[in-house]
Amino acid sequence: MADIIIKNGYVLKMDQAGDIKRGVVVIEDGVITQIADRTHESADTIIDAQGSVVMPGLINTHTHAGMTLFRGYADDLPLAEWLEEHIWPAEAVLNDKDLYNGTLLACLEMIKSGTTTFADMYIHMDEVARAVEKSGMCAALSYGMIDLGDEVRGGSELKEGRRFVHRWDGGADGRIMAMYGPHAPNTCSREFLVKVKEQAMHDDANIHIHVLETEAELKQMKEQFGMCSVNMLDEIGFLDSSVLAAHCVWLSEGDIDILSKRGVNVSHNPVSNMKLASGIAPVPKMLDNGVNVSLGTDGCASNNNLDMFEEMKTSALLHKVNTFDPTVLPARQVLEMATRNGALALGLKTGVLKEGYRADVIIVDMNKPHLTPIYDATSHLVYSTKGCDVRTTIVNGKILMHDYETISLDEQKVMDAARDAAKDLFFRVNT
Amino acid sequence: MADIIIKNGYVLKMDQAGDIKRGVVVIEDGVITQIADRTHESADTIIDAQGSVVMPGLINTHTHAGMTLFRGYADDLPLAEWLEEHIWPAEAVLNDKDLYNGTLLACLEMIKSGTTTFADMYIHMDEVARAVEKSGMCAALSYGMIDLGDEVRGGSELKEGRRFVHRWDGGADGRIMAMYGPHAPNTCSREFLVKVKEQAMHDDANIHIHVLETEAELKQMKEQFGMCSVNMLDEIGFLDSSVLAAHCVWLSEGDIDILSKRGVNVSHNPVSNMKLASGIAPVPKMLDNGVNVSLGTDGCASNNNLDMFEEMKTSALLHKVNTFDPTVLPARQVLEMATRNGALALGLKTGVLKEGYRADVIIVDMNKPHLTPIYDATSHLVYSTKGCDVRTTIVNGKILMHDYETISLDEQKVMDAARDAAKDLFFRVNT
Repeated sequence: MADIIIKNGYVLKMDQAGDIKRGVVVIEDGVITQIADRTHESADTIIDAQGSVVMPGLINTHTHAGMTLFRGYADDLPLAEWLEEHIWPAEAVLNDKDLYNGTLLACLEMIKSGTTTFADMYIHMDEVARAVEKSGMCAALSYGMIDLGDEVRGGSELKEGRRFVHRWDGGADGRIMAMYGPHAPNTCSREFLVKVKEQAMHDDANIHIHVLETEAELKQMKEQFGMCSVNMLDEIGFLDSSVLAAHCVWLSEGDIDILSKRGVNVSHNPVSNMKLASGIAPVPKMLDNGVNVSLGTDGCASNNNLDMFEEMKTSALLHKVNTFDPTVLPARQVLEMATRNGALALGLKTGVLKEGYRADVIIVDMNKPHLTPIYDATSHLVYSTKGCDVRTTIVNGKILMHDYETISLDEQKVMDAARDAAKDLFFRVNT
Repeated sequence: MADIIIKNGYVLKMDQAGDIKRGVVVIEDGVITQIADRTHESADTIIDAQGSVVMPGLINTHTHAGMTLFRGYADDLPLAEWLEEHIWPAEAVLNDKDLYNGTLLACLEMIKSGTTTFADMYIHMDEVARAVEKSGMCAALSYGMIDLGDEVRGGSELKEGRRFVHRWDGGADGRIMAMYGPHAPNTCSREFLVKVKEQAMHDDANIHIHVLETEAELKQMKEQFGMCSVNMLDEIGFLDSSVLAAHCVWLSEGDIDILSKRGVNVSHNPVSNMKLASGIAPVPKMLDNGVNVSLGTDGCASNNNLDMFEEMKTSALLHKVNTFDPTVLPARQVLEMATRNGALALGLKTGVLKEGYRADVIIVDMNKPHLTPIYDATSHLVYSTKGCDVRTTIVNGKILMHDYETISLDEQKVMDAARDAAKDLFFRVNT
C-alpha cells in the first residue's frame, strides 16, 4: 500500500518524457514509485488534483533565509548605504533565536509558494538547520565564511564551516545536505579559498559561493590579481561541478567558457540583481554554452520575497528585453531552470517527477480567473501563476501543505514569532 | 448614516497628507466622506481592516481586456509570427460574445487583484461596456480605430468611434467614460489623426493611443515623415493633456520634452514591453521631466495577467537595473504611478483617498508570511504583495469583493463562460 496517490491532475514531469494530461503520481516511503495514466495501487491518502498541475517542487538555489527579518527594512538606497548603514549593523546583532524564527518564516513562505528545496548560505547555521528540520523542507546549507585575508580569522571560519558540515550533512532524515560556503572571491583570500577547496574535496562536500555579483568585485579582482574572479578561481583549481556559483553577473565570454568546461553550476537571481542594480547576468549565453543555470531569490532584503514563480517570470522577461529577442528563455526552459537544473546543481535526485526520485511534488491550482482559459500549462506556470496558486506541497513524501493549509507549521505562530524577533532585533540595533 | 465604514486599517491615502496608522474611511453615496483617526458616524456596513492596508484602488491605464481569451495562447515567438500567425487570425474571428465573456473574466481578475479602474482600447466595445456595467468596475473605454491610409475605412472607423463615445460616455451610472482610440501613428494616417483630434475636441473627449511601442514604428515614421511619432503628432496639434499615450518606449530626449510641455499622459507597460522585447521606456527621465507616467498591464496576450502589483514591482526593478541606480523609482513613487497618476491621466476624481473623491478603495491583507514582518507598508505593497493579497475591493462605493469573495460576479460562471468562448473561438480560428 502506497502513502499518497495524486490523481486526475495534469502531470508535468519536467523529464524528457512527455507530460500526462490526466495522470497519477504514486508516493511511498518518500519516493515516487509510479507515474502513469492510472494505477491499481491503493494508498492512505488520495489527493484529487482535478483542474490542477502536478509538478516537481521548485528549487531555490540561492537565498539567505534568515533575512526574512529584514524584509522591507531598507529599500531604494545606494548599495554602500544599504549595506553599511542598514544590513551590516542589523546582521551584527543577529542571534540564534533570530535565525531560527527568521528561517522558519522563510520555510513557511517557501512551502506556501511551492518551493521544496533551497540552498542557503548564512550565519548561526545550526539554528537554520533546526528550522529546516522542523519545517519538513529540504535544504542545502552552508555556513558563510569570510576571512578578509586574516589567517587567524580564516582558521576559525574554516573550523566552523567544517563543524557545520560534519554535524549536519545528511541531517533531518537526509533532508539536509551541508556545503562549504566561502562567501565570495573578494571577501575570502586566495589562500583561504585553496584551503576551503581542499577541505571540501576531503569531505566530498559541495561548495556554495557568490561570484561576480557586482562590477565592484570585478574591478577589485582585476586590481588585486590582474584577472577576474572566474580566472582566479580556475587558476587555483577551485572550479568543478561541485561548485554552486551565485549571481555571475559580470562574466566575460571567456568566463562563460570556463564555467561551461568545468561544469560549474550557476544560480541566477534576477530580482535581486535588478533591485540592487547589480546588472544583468548573461543567462542566454550561459545556457547556449551548456552551463547549468538554476534560479534563486537571494535573501528577502533584496527581493523582498521568496516566490520562485515571480523569479521565473522575471528571468523570462528580463532576458527577452535585454537581448531584444522575445524567443529567448521560453517558458519550458525557465521551468527547467527552477526545477531539474536546481536539482542538478545540488546533486540531488529531485526536480523531476520520475520513479525512484524523491517525492518533492507540488500541486498548482489552475481554476483561477488569472489562469483562465488554459492552452498550455507551461506558459501559465511561468507567465501567469503566483506562489499563492500552489494548493499542496509535498516534500520527501510528506504533505507539508494541503489545500492551502500548512500542516507542518502553525502559520500564525511562526509569523508572530518572526514579528517579535524583528522587533527585538531592531531594538538592539537602535540601542 | 453612511454606507460603509472601514476601521482599524493602516490608511495609505496617496495624498500629500501623511498616512494614518490606524484610521477610518467613511463612504456614502459612492464618495469618500471622511478620513480620520476615528469617526462618530454609523454605517450599514462596518469593515474591520485590522492588520490590513486601506488604499486607493489601482488604476490600469492600458489594456485590451478581451484579450484574456488569448492568455498563454502564443508566447516566446518572434513579434511578426506572434502577430501575423496567432493574434491577428484570432482577432479576425472575435465576436460580441467573446468580447463580453473575455472582458468579464478580465474584470473578475482585476477586482480580485485590486484594480478598480482600467483604460481599454479594443473592438466590439459595446460588449466591453456591458461587461464593465455588469462587473461594477470603472473604465475608460475606447473603440480602437485603424484606417491604414484608407479614407473610406477612416470614415467608417471614426463613425463607429463617435457612436461609441456618444452611446457610452457617462454610462453605467457614471462608471464608464468613453474616449477616442486611434490605434497608433503608424496604423492611422496623419489626416485621419487630424480628424479624430477635431472630433475629440468637439466632444470634449479624451484620446487613448499607442505611441512608439516598437523600434519598427520609429523607423517607419522616420521614413514616412522624416520625423518620429511624437514630432508628427505635435505638428498636427494632437498632443495635450487629454491624450493618454501607451508604451512610449522609443522616445528621444526631445520627445520627452514635448510630452512634458504638452502635458501628455504616458502609460508605462513594463511587463508587455519586456515579454515582446520591445525595449525599455525612459521612465525615470520622463518622471524627472514632469511627465505624468502611470502604469498599464497591456492585454493578456503579452503579459499574461492583469496584476498591477506585479506591474509595480517590475517597473521598480527594471529601471533600477537599466540605469544602474537602485534609488530610481522608489516604492512610494511607483505606488503613485499606479494610483494618483492613473487618475490624473484619465481626469478622474479617484486614485487618492480624500474626502469628496470617488470611493474606489481596496483593502490589502498584510497578515501573510510573505508580508511579515512589516516596517513600511509602502515597501511591501511594491516589493512583496501580489494581487491575491487584496481581500476587499470597493468601487464607486459598492463592495465588489469582500474577504476574497467576489460579490458582483459569480466567479465559476465567469470562468466557465470564458473557457467556452475560448474553445469556440479557436475552433473557428482553426476551421
